[in-house]
Amino acid sequence: MNRLVAIDWGTTSLRGALLDADGRVLESQSHARGILSVEPGAFTQVFETLFGDWMLPAGTRCLISGMAGSKQGWVEAPYCACPAGAAEVRRRVLEIEPGRISIVPGLSDMHDGVPDVMRGEEVQIFGAMALTGLRDGLFVLPGTHNKWARVNKGTVTGFRTFMTGEFYALLSQHSLLSRTIDADAPLDEAAFLQGVAQSDNGQGVMHNAFGARTLALFGRMPARELSSYLSGVLIGEELRTQSIHAATDVVLIGSEALTLRYALALHAAGIEARTLGAEATWAGLHALSTPDDETTP
Amino acid sequence: MNRLVAIDWGTTSLRGALLDADGRVLESQSHARGILSVEPGAFTQVFETLFGDWMLPAGTRCLISGMAGSKQGWVEAPYCACPAGAAEVRRRVLEIEPGRISIVPGLSDMHDGVPDVMRGEEVQIFGAMALTGLRDGLFVLPGTHNKWARVNKGTVTGFRTFMTGEFYALLSQHSLLSRTIDADAPLDEAAFLQGVAQSDNGQGVMHNAFGARTLALFGRMPARELSSYLSGVLIGEELRTQSIHAATDVVLIGSEALTLRYALALHAAGIEARTLGAEATWAGLHALSTPDDETTP
Repeated sequence: MNRLVAIDWGTTSLRGALLDADGRVLESQSHARGILSVEPGAFTQVFETLFGDWMLPAGTRCLISGMAGSKQGWVEAPYCACPAGAAEVRRRVLEIEPGRISIVPGLSDMHDGVPDVMRGEEVQIFGAMALTGLRDGLFVLPGTHNKWARVNKGTVTGFRTFMTGEFYALLSQHSLLSRTIDADAPLDEAAFLQGVAQSDNGQGVMHNAFGARTLALFGRMPARELSSYLSGVLIGEELRTQSIHAATDVVLIGSEALTLRYALALHAAGIEARTLGAEATWAGLHALSTPDDETTP
Repeated sequence: MNRLVAIDWGTTSLRGALLDADGRVLESQSHARGILSVEPGAFTQVFETLFGDWMLPAGTRCLISGMAGSKQGWVEAPYCACPAGAAEVRRRVLEIEPGRISIVPGLSDMHDGVPDVMRGEEVQIFGAMALTGLRDGLFVLPGTHNKWARVNKGTVTGFRTFMTGEFYALLSQHSLLSRTIDADAPLDEAAFLQGVAQSDNGQGVMHNAFGARTLALFGRMPARELSSYLSGVLIGEELRTQSIHAATDVVLIGSEALTLRYALALHAAGIEARTLGAEATWAGLHALSTPDDETTP
């Protein structure tokens, strides 16, 4: 098998890695060229400019994941419905340039008539399975729109999205709370865990977020701790909605800053999680580019 | 007793009414002169310009409620802690100009070490008690920061704030959802109640709000209904946190557009509510300006 150009093309950023036949990263690059910055029709040109050199050896293939497969992206790759394993996703991979450039579809799920979607996270989940050897567990992908996915025997049986990252940004930058909160203050673990504990009172985030205002108003929490408290209130609310058994394997995939917070909140609930970063994306694209009978998941 | 100049001086707006000795509204006016628009030190001047004529007859008194009593307002009137009835609030009324202009303190409450506050809504609650004759019940004040207050024997025993109005504004105007939602679309009752029902799934608003995105993405809800759906998800979440017994008297106080939505959501849960508007403010200021032994609440 040849080298693979693996690309995660998101809404606001674009990351690529050149992988050898075993999936090892030879080179990587990242650019502020998310799909929102690319004119319709200009995707081929942007791709060739940034990755043309990597594609030079004849037979080199490229596999892309993320929002590049959405309606606003390069080519729309229709969602693959859950339950879905690597084999189902592989069958739905869409060729942009036959034999050269392909794109991974996202996953969809449905709860009580309301759809849910992911694009790109499914690749990280399959990559995390390949890297950890796990075929069962709860895979948590913090970000602007967090995903909580359940995996059974290598198949993603279902998932839910939580707009936690976006709620945090809205509240800390655009709400009444922004007047007292320093959104860029470093994590204060004690205040964060106080927020996590508070979220368990059954009153929901619309009430508990207001505490970040009143604790400041009454001088009960220093301004530098308020952002950690608010973050704890939001992440705690997510955990509240999940029934996690002590025996469940929990895998966190994402940036160190975010996964650390989830690990702290889970630890407070008696659950230890494993953490993976960008390597899950490359492992996932490598796994999906490999024929069924050669893959781990 | 003389006439009373009753003023509700909020963050972004200012409303005043001239009441006769029985509390009847003789004249009223409203201005976009909330406390945020008044320079520190200029409150007296703004007051005299707008209400000087009403104050002319010697012995006319003025009672003010709302954010004018906050740190950023005219004079800071420290919060009165719950439980608090009209008598307790009356004792904490602060004189700005002795015998002429006074200001009502807000209420504070405390849950598990986290404070909660209201300024102005307490006057509407006392007014609603005077107007309805109720001395027990659940008083709900929708707005940017909604209040749910429990009243027992004429005393506000406790309350909680929900940032529902602000969450709706943030999500419909500044989030990913704003791309598909028409925040100004008229209320669609069916979509609203669908959102209320959805909020009962135990997944919280950070998940359920995302449905306003995916229902649009999958063509399962027309764009004009999405704002009603989101509104239902948020208001339904508030109701979820309340344990309302069928025998509880529920009073909604606020604008017609908002109280209608709460009445619909409560009706869907088998609870009929009474609704009051601005008259509750005037009745409350009148009640608080009257000596203890003459008042209804």
